[in-house]
Amino acid sequence: MSTPEVPEGSIPVLDHGFVRLDDAMASDLSVVNAARVSFARHKQEMESEDEGLIGFLLRNRHGTPFEHNSFRFHVRCPIFVMREWIRHRWSSFNEFSMRYTRANDDFYIPALEDMRQQVGKPGSYSFEPVEPELAETARAEMEKANKASYATYDRLIEAGIARELARTVLPVAAYTEFYWTVNARSLMNFLSLRNAEAAQREIHRYAEVIEGLFAERMPLTHAAFVSAGRTAP
Amino acid sequence: MSTPEVPEGSIPVLDHGFVRLDDAMASDLSVVNAARVSFARHKQEMESEDEGLIGFLLRNRHGTPFEHNSFRFHVRCPIFVMREWIRHRWSSFNEFSMRYTRANDDFYIPALEDMRQQVGKPGSYSFEPVEPELAETARAEMEKANKASYATYDRLIEAGIARELARTVLPVAAYTEFYWTVNARSLMNFLSLRNAEAAQREIHRYAEVIEGLFAERMPLTHAAFVSAGRTAP
Amino acid sequence: MSTPEVPEGSIPVLDHGFVRLDDAMASDLSVVNAARVSFARHKQEMESEDEGLIGFLLRNRHGTPFEHNSFRFHVRCPIFVMREWIRHRWSSFNEFSMRYTRANDDFYIPALEDMRQQVGKPGSYSFEPVEPELAETARAEMEKANKASYATYDRLIEAGIARELARTVLPVAAYTEFYWTVNARSLMNFLSLRNAEAAQREIHRYAEVIEGLFAERMPLTHAAFVSAGRTAP
Amino acid sequence: MSTPEVPEGSIPVLDHGFVRLDDAMASDLSVVNAARVSFARHKQEMESEDEGLIGFLLRNRHGTPFEHNSFRFHVRCPIFVMREWIRHRWSSFNEFSMRYTRANDDFYIPALEDMRQQVGKPGSYSFEPVEPELAETARAEMEKANKASYATYDRLIEAGIARELARTVLPVAAYTEFYWTVNARSLMNFLSLRNAEAAQREIHRYAEVIEGLFAERMPLTHAAFVSAGRTAP
Repeated sequence: MSTPEVPEGSIPVLDHGFVRLDDAMASDLSVVNAARVSFARHKQEMESEDEGLIGFLLRNRHGTPFEHNSFRFHVRCPIFVMREWIRHRWSSFNEFSMRYTRANDDFYIPALEDMRQQVGKPGSYSFEPVEPELAETARAEMEKANKASYATYDRLIEAGIARELARTVLPVAAYTEFYWTVNARSLMNFLSLRNAEAAQREIHRYAEVIEGLFAERMPLTHAAFVSAGRTAP
Repeated sequence: MSTPEVPEGSIPVLDHGFVRLDDAMASDLSVVNAARVSFARHKQEMESEDEGLIGFLLRNRHGTPFEHNSFRFHVRCPIFVMREWIRHRWSSFNEFSMRYTRANDDFYIPALEDMRQQVGKPGSYSFEPVEPELAETARAEMEKANKASYATYDRLIEAGIARELARTVLPVAAYTEFYWTVNARSLMNFLSLRNAEAAQREIHRYAEVIEGLFAERMPLTHAAFVSAGRTAP
Repeated sequence: MSTPEVPEGSIPVLDHGFVRLDDAMASDLSVVNAARVSFARHKQEMESEDEGLIGFLLRNRHGTPFEHNSFRFHVRCPIFVMREWIRHRWSSFNEFSMRYTRANDDFYIPALEDMRQQVGKPGSYSFEPVEPELAETARAEMEKANKASYATYDRLIEAGIARELARTVLPVAAYTEFYWTVNARSLMNFLSLRNAEAAQREIHRYAEVIEGLFAERMPLTHAAFVSAGRTAP
Repeated sequence: MSTPEVPEGSIPVLDHGFVRLDDAMASDLSVVNAARVSFARHKQEMESEDEGLIGFLLRNRHGTPFEHNSFRFHVRCPIFVMREWIRHRWSSFNEFSMRYTRANDDFYIPALEDMRQQVGKPGSYSFEPVEPELAETARAEMEKANKASYATYDRLIEAGIARELARTVLPVAAYTEFYWTVNARSLMNFLSLRNAEAAQREIHRYAEVIEGLFAERMPLTHAAFVSAGRTAP
């Protein structure tokens, strides 16, 4: 099956994935107004003192003023990445369904420079590139395995087996897609955990792109988040 | 203390309250696209068949496609109304704080025609208007009580007592204000419980206004909600 | 790798899965007391009238009294089942991690009688058994595909590739395990969707077992849920 | 009206309030087992190394292992305290209802040593005792105001006004009661904000009692929370 079209305005991630900001209702002003309602004040525009207020709120973990906004992302990523993403419960997901729709044959294969080994002890693992030769072999092995799985899937479907069963042989490298709607507070929690050293490199790449889109829409909030040591309020 | 300014674009509710839609990221199309991601399809505009899809989703309690949107309301209402509102946990609130800001002297007094008695047995109460004379007396009693409470509050503040303590004598008829951000799924749950016979009349009034603003932005979703017997998915 | 031990007290589901109730703080009385706090009443034991109260609460969608209890389950199931389970956000999950721990070689293969085809039109699919011969072939195909995937995984690990990358070739038929903690309200929502005709048969099997364990601990609540048409409050 | 009975096993807080742990499903072992499922390990008892694991999880903000437990509290406190409490959305509440049940005449009056003034500038307020004479006067003023409000409430009820309207004149010093069910993760968030300097002294008192009950049931988790600077994971 052919790869689905890449929607306009999407940013490529990994070999067959993307992130696209579908819509947003987000501004630094929304944070300020939510906080100022404590004093029954409401503004039409940001003022110079408000940057300080945003920083104060973040450092003191006043989280609710960061919830009055919304980002809707359209994402395409491997299943194993989505499985980490969906742990973030204070947000909304709708995902591609392989129960009823036929899967396509896109699978994630790490680039040569991403083919890595795990070194160190439990609790403090790190990752280092493997030898180029091994990287090549591993890529070839993965590609072969994924293709074989897809061929089995294909044969099972052709023979009349229900898609919801045939899909069980597909690897977690298979690409899926979903809509994700999230507010800035929950988004910063996501970024603190996923755009971070301890995150698996693949979700890390997505989180970097997400962070860029967040920073564009809420620059003062983003700057305050970075200054506060990337801890979500 | 003087009443706070009423923000532009707000709709009056009760004697000193209002509802204002501060911002929204909401359309029926967002529901359709969230649902269609199951089939890896994405649209720029609604098509005729999509109305049927929205109804299908609602009736079958597929709730998540209704979460990819956001409404931010600015509300002014009595404390006893806010106490019912805040039970709706899948949404975000920031409220006026009487710990640090001086309360004003607006209090809810039911209009003559809203002064009511409770009739019937536990589990099936209903409400009927009281005699006009009693309604008048009751209004006068309430007004006097609320004024006296505010006068005490005022004296305590003037004497140097902390606002967070002085406020304890203020009645739950006192007006508060807050920002409320909520998605359509959680909003429909709110409407099913609060724009309903069993709801207290005062929050009912707010819910009617909220429902009107929701219907304007997501008319097909609203129509489907009504058709489905006002049950949230 | 060998299959992990099956914990004592667990109920087998599918070919290599189980459900085990690890602990619970749950009784019908907890529902009654939570509801009766509205009237400042508290009981040590259920009384005859309380069964009616539970039914009343359920039918009228008073959901919060059903939240003051907790069930902790330990579950082993295929990844594709877990991916449906984790959609239930108002609950808590901790899952086996293939980033750091070596996967074992258990994979779900449908029993002969579960090998099925999908019939009907979109929106109203149903499932029927396939011919015994096809069922046999399909099982053999799946088994072969899963074994081949695991062999690739094994070789990649032995060659030094990080587990978090090698796992990407493993199919969603692979077994995972997790702890799931949930209250009765959220649990009834799970049961209404997963112990249901529209659910995929595999998660349906798990939901049946979960429902049995729920019914044992909260028999009156369970009976009321069934009477109310299996709609969660 | 007379004060309601104080349930057995409750700990008095403020002048007419209490906290009672109604039930719990909670142990440090639940944290360890939830975390160890990542490695497919399960224990019957804590081992010496597990204390270190709990500390590691807390410091690194791995929050989910702390969610597999449950505390059910029965609380009686003034309305203005409950209004802060209910902000904690990741937990469950059922509250006494003044719509249908007659309120009693218990109101919070600060003790002499708690009658305080607010000093300092916005953003860094602190509180100091007022002169004993003022404290006496303030207490008398509050008592008088609350009694007058209750007398109005009483007269309105006697005259036939619905309870849901008559209650509007009652002050936020009025006592209410509720059941609160919460897991350790959400509970630590509550403690980090409410058993803290910045919290209002009245909810602070409740949070101290709650923290004691939490520490008894999950001593290692509590110790790790304190060591980690009282930041919830």
